[in-house]
Amino acid sequence: MAEISLHRPYPASEVAAWDYTCDVAVIGFGATGASAAIEAADAGARVILFERNSGSGGASGLSGGEIYIGGGGGTDVQRAAGFSDSTEDFTAYLKAAGGPCVDEAKCEKYGREALDHFAWLKAQGVPYRGNYLPGKHIEPTDDSTLIWSGSEAAWPFCDVAKPAPRGHVIQHMGWGGGRPLVDILEASARASGVEVVADARAVALVADGARVVGAVVRIDNQNRFVRAAKGVVLATGGFAFNEAMRRKYCPETFKLSDPIGDKDDGAGIMLGLGAGGEAIHMEQFFTTCPWTMPESHANGVFVNAMGQRFINEDCYHGRVSRCAVDQPGGKVYLCLDNAHFIQPMDFARMTIAGTGDTWEEVEGELGMAAGTLSQTMAFYNEHARAGHDPLFHKRPPILTALDQGPFVALELNFETSYFSFFTLGGLHTSAQGEVLDRTGAPLPGLFAAGRCTSGLPAWGHGYSSGLSLADCTYFGRQAGRKAAAG
Amino acid sequence: MAEISLHRPYPASEVAAWDYTCDVAVIGFGATGASAAIEAADAGARVILFERNSGSGGASGLSGGEIYIGGGGGTDVQRAAGFSDSTEDFTAYLKAAGGPCVDEAKCEKYGREALDHFAWLKAQGVPYRGNYLPGKHIEPTDDSTLIWSGSEAAWPFCDVAKPAPRGHVIQHMGWGGGRPLVDILEASARASGVEVVADARAVALVADGARVVGAVVRIDNQNRFVRAAKGVVLATGGFAFNEAMRRKYCPETFKLSDPIGDKDDGAGIMLGLGAGGEAIHMEQFFTTCPWTMPESHANGVFVNAMGQRFINEDCYHGRVSRCAVDQPGGKVYLCLDNAHFIQPMDFARMTIAGTGDTWEEVEGELGMAAGTLSQTMAFYNEHARAGHDPLFHKRPPILTALDQGPFVALELNFETSYFSFFTLGGLHTSAQGEVLDRTGAPLPGLFAAGRCTSGLPAWGHGYSSGLSLADCTYFGRQAGRKAAAG
Repeated sequence: MAEISLHRPYPASEVAAWDYTCDVAVIGFGATGASAAIEAADAGARVILFERNSGSGGASGLSGGEIYIGGGGGTDVQRAAGFSDSTEDFTAYLKAAGGPCVDEAKCEKYGREALDHFAWLKAQGVPYRGNYLPGKHIEPTDDSTLIWSGSEAAWPFCDVAKPAPRGHVIQHMGWGGGRPLVDILEASARASGVEVVADARAVALVADGARVVGAVVRIDNQNRFVRAAKGVVLATGGFAFNEAMRRKYCPETFKLSDPIGDKDDGAGIMLGLGAGGEAIHMEQFFTTCPWTMPESHANGVFVNAMGQRFINEDCYHGRVSRCAVDQPGGKVYLCLDNAHFIQPMDFARMTIAGTGDTWEEVEGELGMAAGTLSQTMAFYNEHARAGHDPLFHKRPPILTALDQGPFVALELNFETSYFSFFTLGGLHTSAQGEVLDRTGAPLPGLFAAGRCTSGLPAWGHGYSSGLSLADCTYFGRQAGRKAAAG
Repeated sequence: MAEISLHRPYPASEVAAWDYTCDVAVIGFGATGASAAIEAADAGARVILFERNSGSGGASGLSGGEIYIGGGGGTDVQRAAGFSDSTEDFTAYLKAAGGPCVDEAKCEKYGREALDHFAWLKAQGVPYRGNYLPGKHIEPTDDSTLIWSGSEAAWPFCDVAKPAPRGHVIQHMGWGGGRPLVDILEASARASGVEVVADARAVALVADGARVVGAVVRIDNQNRFVRAAKGVVLATGGFAFNEAMRRKYCPETFKLSDPIGDKDDGAGIMLGLGAGGEAIHMEQFFTTCPWTMPESHANGVFVNAMGQRFINEDCYHGRVSRCAVDQPGGKVYLCLDNAHFIQPMDFARMTIAGTGDTWEEVEGELGMAAGTLSQTMAFYNEHARAGHDPLFHKRPPILTALDQGPFVALELNFETSYFSFFTLGGLHTSAQGEVLDRTGAPLPGLFAAGRCTSGLPAWGHGYSSGLSLADCTYFGRQAGRKAAAG
C-alpha cells in the first residue's frame, strides 16, 4: 500500500473505497475556504468542506474582519465619505503594495472586480454600517466601516496612486470582526448546501495520474478517502507556526517573537508542492508592532540604534514595523515628547529606554554618541515646524515637532516586544485559483487561495490591512468557481 | 513516449537504448563538476562529465580562482604570514557569513576539513606562491596567494571570530585565476580517467521509480541517453541569466544591471526540483560594485539618498554593495576628499554627482537638504580624527577623516552603475552532496553542489570572496564521493 503523505499524492488506484464523494472538496474553513465553498456550491457543485478544528475560523477568525476594497469610482461608503477611487488608482496601489513580488494579473483582476466583490460580501449577509472613521486605527474601536488601512496617503505610494481609504470593516463593535465575518460566511455556505466535516485534518491528496481527484482526511484516528470529481481547493493558511518550514524558507522571522494565526502549519503548501506545484516568495512575511496605540504615538519619530530615521512614520504601521526589523542592532526607538506620550499598551511590551529634558539627555541615556539622536530630532523638528520632512516625506497632520519636553524613547525590541508576524509566501496560483506547476501550467484538479498561496499581499514591506482577507475571500471565490467548472 | 523535460525525470523503462554508460554522470564542467568527477573517479567509479559548452569553464572559469580556506591553526600560507586561525574561529565566521540562511552542518564539516581540502587542491596541481598581500583587494593584481577577502576584521564579524585573511588565490599573474584553476582541475580529471563529453546539454534526468539512474543530453540536436549506475551529480550553476526564474524567485535582482556567470540558466535547479528536490533561500543573491578601486576609495564614506551612512565601509566590498542596494532611493553616494579621490574605473560606471569646496556645497549639488550630508561628514570626521566610528564601528587604517577639500560624491546607481550579481539560492543538499526532498530525505541517485545548491555562501549580506569556490570544490568533491559510493 502506498504511503499516506503530505508530500506526494496517494494513488487513486489504491483507494479501496471512498468514504466521501463530492464534486469539490475544500480543505480549511477560514474565510478562504468558506468563500470557495459558497461559490462552488452556487455554481451547482456538490461541495464538502473539511476542517481540522471542531469549527470554522482559521486565521481569518482571529483577524479584524477588514477587507481592502476600492476602484470603479469608489464603494458607496467611500463615495458617501467624499472619496472617489478610480480602478486605475486602486490597481496601481495594489501593484505598488506587491513591490518586487507583485502578481500583476491578480492585481488587475481584483482591481476591476472589487466593487462586485463588495456586493457579493453584502449579499452573503456581511453587514456594513457605512460610515467613515477618520484617524489612524489598527481596527475601529467602534462599529465603523471605512478606515485608512494602508500607506495610501504616504510617500512614495501617494505619488503612485491618488490616495483613498479602502479598509472596509464588518459592522461589529470593537476589534475582532473576523469571527463574525467567518460566521456569516459559514451560514451562507451551509445555506448554499455545503456539507461541513469538522475534526478532519487533510493528510494527503489523491491523484489519478497527474490529476488530483480527492484527498485523504484523518477523522477519529482513521484515514478517510474523499473523492472530489471536479477538484480540491486548498485553503489552509500560511506556515507561521511551522518552525522547520520557517527555517528553510523564511528564516528572518526567527528574530521575531510572536507568530499569529490558527497554528498555521503550512500543510496546504506541502500538499500542493507534493502534487507538483511550486511555492514562491516564501521569504516574505508580514509583521507589526502596535506602536500607533495610543493614537498620539502615531506622531512619534522612529530611529534605529544609530539614531537615524529610516521611514516616513505616516506609512501603515506594518510597513513601518517591517522596515524597523530590517534595521541593524536588534531594536528601534519610538521618540515622543510630552505632548504626545501616553503609557504604551502592556501587550506591546515596549519599554521606556531613555528619558530627558532634552533630546541630548535622551541620547545619553540610550548610550548613543552625542550629536546623533539629538541632531536627528533637531533636524526633524526644524522642518516639521515648517511642514516638511525633507528626508522621508512624512506629511501633516502627524508631522508635528516633538519639542515639548520632557522627552522619551520607547524601545521596540525585535525579540522581546510584541512583533506579531505571519507568512506571505505560498503556492503559485493563477488569477483563477489554479495551482501552477513550475512551467506555469495548471495542475489538473488542484486549486488554492489565501495564505497558502502568494497573492495580493505578496510583499511584507507593502502590506496594508485588509489585503489578506481581500485575497482570501475574492481569490477563494475564484478557486471555488474554477474548481466547480471541472 | 514520455516527454523529455527539465521538470520531470524520463522513465528508464522507456529508454530504448543507452548511448552512454557509466557509474557517475556529472553535469557541468566548472570547478564543481571537475571536483566531483575527480573524486568519483579516484574512488573507482567510471565517470563521464557532460558540458553544454565546447569546453570546461562555467562561471568558475570567469572567476578570480580564489578559495576561502582556514582553521586548524592556519594554512601554511597563513602561518608564514603570522596569522593563526583556529577551527573554532574559522567555523564561527562561516556561520556568521551564512546569516539567517546558514547551513550549520556544511559550515562545521568544511570548518574541520578545509586544510585537508587545501592539500587536495595542491595535490591536483593548483600552484600557490605562498605569500601574503596586505591591503584591500578584489583580486591580487600580481600572483600573490593570501588576501583579506571578507569582512573578518570588520564589525560585527570581528566580535564573532578572531580575524584572519583566508582568501587563497591560485598563482596567476593578475585577475582571472579561475580559468587556470579550472584548467588544472580538468587536467587532473582527465588524468583520473574521467571521460568528457562536450557540446552536450542536459535536458532531463532519467529515473527508475524514485531512483535517478541517468540523464538525457542533447548532442548535435539528438537526445542521447546516459545510464549512470550509481548516480548523477548536478553542477550546473545558478540562475542569474534566467529571467523567468529570477522573476519568480529572486525579483530584487531586477533593480540591478549586470548578471555575471556563464549564462547560468538554472537548469540543474529545475532538474533537481523535477526529481523531487526542493530549492531554498532562492531570494538570496550576491552583488558588488567595484567601489574599492582605486584602492584609496576604500577610505570613502557611503551615504544613502538621505545623506545617512548605513554600513562600516571596512566590510567586504560585496557586503557594502549588498547593503547599498537595500537603501531606498535607487542609489547611494561614495564620498571622498581630495586626498583620496582618483578618477574611478570606467567599467564601474560610477559618475561624479556632486563636488564642492565644503561638504555643504556637495550636499547642495546633490539636492540634499542643508544639514544632512554635511552633518554626517562633520560627525564622521570628528570621530575619525579620534580613531572611532561610534555609529558603525569602522576601524583604522581606512578610518580616516575626509577633510581635505575639494570634495566629491560619486553616484552608484543600482540600475546604471556596474552592480554585478549572481544568485545564491538553490537545491537543498546534505553536507555529503545528496539532493534532499522536502522531508530532508536524500533522493536516491541524485547529487548536487556549487551554485545550483544553497551552500556556504548562503546569504548575500555575508558573502566573502572565495566562499563560492570553496563550496564548489569542496562540496563538489563530497557529491562525487557520495555518488561513487552508490
